[in-house]
Amino acid sequence: MRAIRGALSVRSERVVRWIGDDCAVVRAGGACAVSTDVMVDGTHFRLGQATPEDVGWRALAGALSDIAAMGGEAGEAYLSVVLPPSMGDDDVLALHRGAEALAASCGVTIAGGDLARGPALTVAVTVMGWADAPDAFVGRDGARPGDRVGVTGTLGASAAGLALLERGGSGPLVERYLRPRPRLEEGRALAGQATAMMDLSDGLASDAHRIAEASRVGLLLDASRLPLAPGVDSVELAATGGEDYELLVCGPDTLPGLTWIGEVVAGEGVEWTEAPPGAQAWRGFEH
Amino acid sequence: MRAIRGALSVRSERVVRWIGDDCAVVRAGGACAVSTDVMVDGTHFRLGQATPEDVGWRALAGALSDIAAMGGEAGEAYLSVVLPPSMGDDDVLALHRGAEALAASCGVTIAGGDLARGPALTVAVTVMGWADAPDAFVGRDGARPGDRVGVTGTLGASAAGLALLERGGSGPLVERYLRPRPRLEEGRALAGQATAMMDLSDGLASDAHRIAEASRVGLLLDASRLPLAPGVDSVELAATGGEDYELLVCGPDTLPGLTWIGEVVAGEGVEWTEAPPGAQAWRGFEH
Repeated sequence: MRAIRGALSVRSERVVRWIGDDCAVVRAGGACAVSTDVMVDGTHFRLGQATPEDVGWRALAGALSDIAAMGGEAGEAYLSVVLPPSMGDDDVLALHRGAEALAASCGVTIAGGDLARGPALTVAVTVMGWADAPDAFVGRDGARPGDRVGVTGTLGASAAGLALLERGGSGPLVERYLRPRPRLEEGRALAGQATAMMDLSDGLASDAHRIAEASRVGLLLDASRLPLAPGVDSVELAATGGEDYELLVCGPDTLPGLTWIGEVVAGEGVEWTEAPPGAQAWRGFEH
Repeated sequence: MRAIRGALSVRSERVVRWIGDDCAVVRAGGACAVSTDVMVDGTHFRLGQATPEDVGWRALAGALSDIAAMGGEAGEAYLSVVLPPSMGDDDVLALHRGAEALAASCGVTIAGGDLARGPALTVAVTVMGWADAPDAFVGRDGARPGDRVGVTGTLGASAAGLALLERGGSGPLVERYLRPRPRLEEGRALAGQATAMMDLSDGLASDAHRIAEASRVGLLLDASRLPLAPGVDSVELAATGGEDYELLVCGPDTLPGLTWIGEVVAGEGVEWTEAPPGAQAWRGFEH
């Protein structure tokens, strides 16, 4: 734990105590958003394809993306790591260095964690994000008919990157898969005006259903408008590929920095227009 | 997730959003203590000896014990669960019911979580505890020469219970191992006056060293005064057995509800008196 603490830094005056006591202690005010995510070797990544640094980065990115999706200011992260017999102290440090590299770029403090032995590398990350008041956070449930639907960035990069990685490739798409960047700044900029927001972790085709269900509305999405990532030529991949960690946003057309892909309508579910046959059955990852 | 949510209840007006969005949202004020703990089948428990309900209870208890050790008011818990192929939906629900039974008895809300597949049952729990201000929490680092050293409850029950369980036994000692009760009320009652506090998770012999090191003092412990749990006849087991989740407390002799087992002295490390030969080498679980 001492070596891990040495690889990490405190980045906020909020943090009063961190690694080394029974608990971390943070000054608390306003409201706090909390999310917890677990990633397991063989299920969410493959050691060998991904380095321990990649795994640390990626696990933290997945959790921070949930803070971005609420429009929160990213605060503290807590990493529980289960280590297989094949991994030693160097690997644990490397994993924490990977997470710390992302934390540093987001102003996040890794304030605590736990280590244990087990059969497969497992990283459980809990993150806390902050806002002045509970209603400053944007949920999935506020979309209203007449809202427009947009996404940040581009789609399909992570799924294309994974496919490339499995064939031994490298490059920007692989980087998008191994080292995704949570859209924290974008989320905060959108938080004042967006009516509903979520991050695209399972793929637009599945995640859009979740916003529709939570908001009790329908989403009408135009497949021809999906912003394909450079190097991605399949609309279906962009709609169904997971782990892009872009934001799916509903709200007025004055929202900044989005590609508009559809609109919110009365009703339920997701309907695709300008789409190839079979699009109604598109799904990303379903739990 | 819907079935899991159905097995859980919100127990605090602090909780504004819970399971079902990207993040839970809680009203925040004063200061927050956060701890994260991970338990793995084969390392921290054995399925078969422990039921899924036991595992849920025990994982939450271990994390809440850290809140008790800071003197915090237990608030919210977040459970990430990795499920092996042998476990189905019923087992996941049972695990959450076990955690919820403890949560209900502590006023805790299980406000979020994650589920994934992997080779071994793994439960990572993050808990948040609350206080009016950061300095209302008690760390490990405030013990001063002249303080007395005490413990809550009795020692050795969990280790004796595990030994009994491995021989197919049952009864109160086994219950102490499978369903430990974090000392939350005791922790809060002690928080105003205690100078240093921690929970006994690895065994007194090891944990006492941690308080000594964090506070830069020595601890002089009287082995003849350890409060052995009923059915435990070995002082060494009481000193080295882990997972009792009692509190080790330093402070004035006016502190309520403790058995006094020693005193804080200038110097470093832990010295045993009235102890059998070999006591200086006693250790609990060392990470």
